[in-house]
Amino acid sequence: MAEITAGIVGYGNLGCGVEKILENHDDIELLGIFTRRPVESLSISSEDIKVLNVDEAENYQQEIDVMFLCGGSARDLPRQGPEFARMFNTVDSYDNHDKIPEYFARMDGIARENDNTCAVGIGWDPGLFSLNRMLMQAIMPQGQGYTFWGEGVSQGHSDAIRELEGVFDAVQYTIPRQQYIEDVRSGETPPQAAEKRHLRRCFVVLEEGADEEEIARSIREMPNYFAGYETEINFVSRRELEQDHAGMPHGGFVMRNARTGSENENSQIMEFSLDLDSNPEFTASVMAAYGRAAVRLNAEGRTGARTVWDIAPSYLSSLSPSELRESML
Amino acid sequence: MAEITAGIVGYGNLGCGVEKILENHDDIELLGIFTRRPVESLSISSEDIKVLNVDEAENYQQEIDVMFLCGGSARDLPRQGPEFARMFNTVDSYDNHDKIPEYFARMDGIARENDNTCAVGIGWDPGLFSLNRMLMQAIMPQGQGYTFWGEGVSQGHSDAIRELEGVFDAVQYTIPRQQYIEDVRSGETPPQAAEKRHLRRCFVVLEEGADEEEIARSIREMPNYFAGYETEINFVSRRELEQDHAGMPHGGFVMRNARTGSENENSQIMEFSLDLDSNPEFTASVMAAYGRAAVRLNAEGRTGARTVWDIAPSYLSSLSPSELRESML
Repeated sequence: MAEITAGIVGYGNLGCGVEKILENHDDIELLGIFTRRPVESLSISSEDIKVLNVDEAENYQQEIDVMFLCGGSARDLPRQGPEFARMFNTVDSYDNHDKIPEYFARMDGIARENDNTCAVGIGWDPGLFSLNRMLMQAIMPQGQGYTFWGEGVSQGHSDAIRELEGVFDAVQYTIPRQQYIEDVRSGETPPQAAEKRHLRRCFVVLEEGADEEEIARSIREMPNYFAGYETEINFVSRRELEQDHAGMPHGGFVMRNARTGSENENSQIMEFSLDLDSNPEFTASVMAAYGRAAVRLNAEGRTGARTVWDIAPSYLSSLSPSELRESML
Repeated sequence: MAEITAGIVGYGNLGCGVEKILENHDDIELLGIFTRRPVESLSISSEDIKVLNVDEAENYQQEIDVMFLCGGSARDLPRQGPEFARMFNTVDSYDNHDKIPEYFARMDGIARENDNTCAVGIGWDPGLFSLNRMLMQAIMPQGQGYTFWGEGVSQGHSDAIRELEGVFDAVQYTIPRQQYIEDVRSGETPPQAAEKRHLRRCFVVLEEGADEEEIARSIREMPNYFAGYETEINFVSRRELEQDHAGMPHGGFVMRNARTGSENENSQIMEFSLDLDSNPEFTASVMAAYGRAAVRLNAEGRTGARTVWDIAPSYLSSLSPSELRESML
């Protein structure tokens, strides 16, 4: 039944997500999960799936059509991406926006040299949000585009707080200002700067003896993360953090409004939005579809790195072109 | 400056829309408008644009890179599409959903034989809505998808009323039931049938002496158009119709909700929506971007008919791949 055999590298939230999501795709079979942890320490729901040390991956180049790289962008992917692009078609969710051009160039070179196809920066932002920003700009270049993130947990911002001395644990929610979303929807053009359009709400568990005021100041002044944002800080107990803030919801809005008509009399508004209970499981859902695309492109000899907008959308679907035309056009 | 030279065939609402919209695209220059009407009868805003009889189009095959076919789907495009696919790269907004597979096959054959690239069914539905239905299904095959249309004027339904004997003029609004949109947004799965999820509101001007009750019954019972729908009928004066219902607003929502997680505990909701003051000007905006794509694909030797999902989105943008990666990923 399955036409595509897949592997997963890394078994954190995202890797677990891909494992679960692939069950929804009859044409993709998961062969194994590759991990740096002791193989015995992983408990996998299905017995049919191998758990292997990441060093064994090179022995599976014949069997695995596409490898889902589920490491983090800060430490894992800069090394893992190029390493696996040598051996496999890959899909990753590399999300360091500033360094994507550099990462893309590296992946592209290695993938081409080795006749592989690597989908890079796949998820929702970067990913589906990027795709919508691009599409909307191409269709209405005269307009103004916006991305609003949240309401949702930002792992990067939560981690930044956790790394402060005196902090035991923390969760940070990015919250878009509803008023500005409504403004865009009514054809207005609110401020462009992200820090004006969002607020940051933090739930922080302190180590014993840590100074609330000092920690709060350190958070508010942290450059790139909190400085410039309205930041709300709540100190809570370990139990409260576990009970009320253990989920990983996220989402957001990509919008563009523009005017058309000889007198610019017509307002035209496009909007794409996500409302996700589980950020990693949704990212995994996007990656699964792009895994199918990477394998198909590769079979046509179209190698190298690809972003969301370098791939014709029909490659993502398990339906044939004529089935698509009959059912979805 | 301009890299692409374009022509327009047909100068109704859509053709006028394309003319205006191309002003937003520095890389596309409009050479001429081809019409079946007497050439003198068209008043074009710009002197640089030629107005020509449609029969002269064949003489412009060397100069025009892409032809925007702006005829209607019922009577014009079934003839115009194949005729122009022989001579030019084309973009059309063919929107007879049932007959698209047949139309696509015809266009594809002719375009391939003549080394042209023809973007078919380009607009918002079919078009961007189709693209989103497809993308969402590929990403969350386990979910349930919905399209809501409106609130907006349906030309097809307005025309159907106008054709009744005793009707002088009419405008029909398709209105989605807000409650069902909210249901989908909260993870519910409301009824699938379009006639349950929308209502139809009609403003009708009668000919003198026509029978209100009879006309109302004829509208409500009209198969494919109104039968099965809740239909609200308002009889109004000519003046009221002109004053309050002359615009062409439209829009709608493509949504999909699905559950993920080992216990299906997570609700994941995707939504794409449009809120348009001018339906033809937005359709023209989408066509303009796909015109650029058709020319580029053709330059790479990729001929034949293409739908929205057969084209990698980057082909739509005037920005280069590296500019896109730097600014929008």
